Amino acid sequence: VTDAAPQLYLEDLVVGEVERFGRCVVEREEVIAFALRYDPQPYHVDDAAAAANPMFGRISASAVHTFAMTSRMLAERAAFTGFRPSAGLGMKEMRNLKPVYPGDVLTVETEITEARRSRSQPGRGVVTQAVRVYNQDGDKVMEFNGAMLFPARGP
Amino acid sequence: VTDAAPQLYLEDLVVGEVERFGRCVVEREEVIAFALRYDPQPYHVDDAAAAANPMFGRISASAVHTFAMTSRMLAERAAFTGFRPSAGLGMKEMRNLKPVYPGDVLTVETEITEARRSRSQPGRGVVTQAVRVYNQDGDKVMEFNGAMLFPARGP
Repeated sequence: VTDAAPQLYLEDLVVGEVERFGRCVVEREEVIAFALRYDPQPYHVDDAAAAANPMFGRISASAVHTFAMTSRMLAERAAFTGFRPSAGLGMKEMRNLKPVYPGDVLTVETEITEARRSRSQPGRGVVTQAVRVYNQDGDKVMEFNGAMLFPARGP
Repeated sequence: VTDAAPQLYLEDLVVGEVERFGRCVVEREEVIAFALRYDPQPYHVDDAAAAANPMFGRISASAVHTFAMTSRMLAERAAFTGFRPSAGLGMKEMRNLKPVYPGDVLTVETEITEARRSRSQPGRGVVTQAVRVYNQDGDKVMEFNGAMLFPARGP
């Protein structure tokens, strides 16, 4: 990870700010390998089982894998924006909206929805962002809200 | 995936039913490899950066990785219980409660919190379960609520 951009702090974040970034090509071999290891549902790893499932029709990425690819795009943002959380706190309302297929190209949109001081940890903030994942057709394939601890400049 | 147990249907599920299962040993090499690929935060991949982060102290698994390991334990359940969803719909309220360290041994507890017919898809149900992940000390390290489509016997 190249960490070129200087660290952002809680005081730098603006609620409502939207960013679009990332480019992740979904690879068939990786889709199958990831699913075999972490989400071995027949419809993620076997062409015939996928064809028989009317929700998918053909092999699609596990939502866990889509979440992981999104996580990578979010982490890559750090290098060019300095958006580096101290730790992830959790997520709310992850929705799997459309299947993600091999060959798809994913991008991310984030929106800061909350940026406040931590009540329990002086010197840190709690930041919440909406994360939306789109494919090359502009279809939203996944969305969630992520909460994280974020460094603050002062107490 | 060995699919020995016959498929469960919506009609077989009982709200409030709790199951405990799974055993996943967290491996240091896998923690680092997963984080390098999908969540390259310095504190997940570098001993010195992890030691400097007061939230962690030493290298810990990415929450995305813990979620993936949990997903595998949930999928393995299918072979011995027949609990095989048609598709995942999403999640609510994932909380990362404690760091997950190499050497930890994770297990899962699930509780069915809702099991109803789908309004849009006859012949399918919508099932929600609470998922709680524990380490070898009995500490809850992660929890979330997962929603899925589930096959039903009749319309």
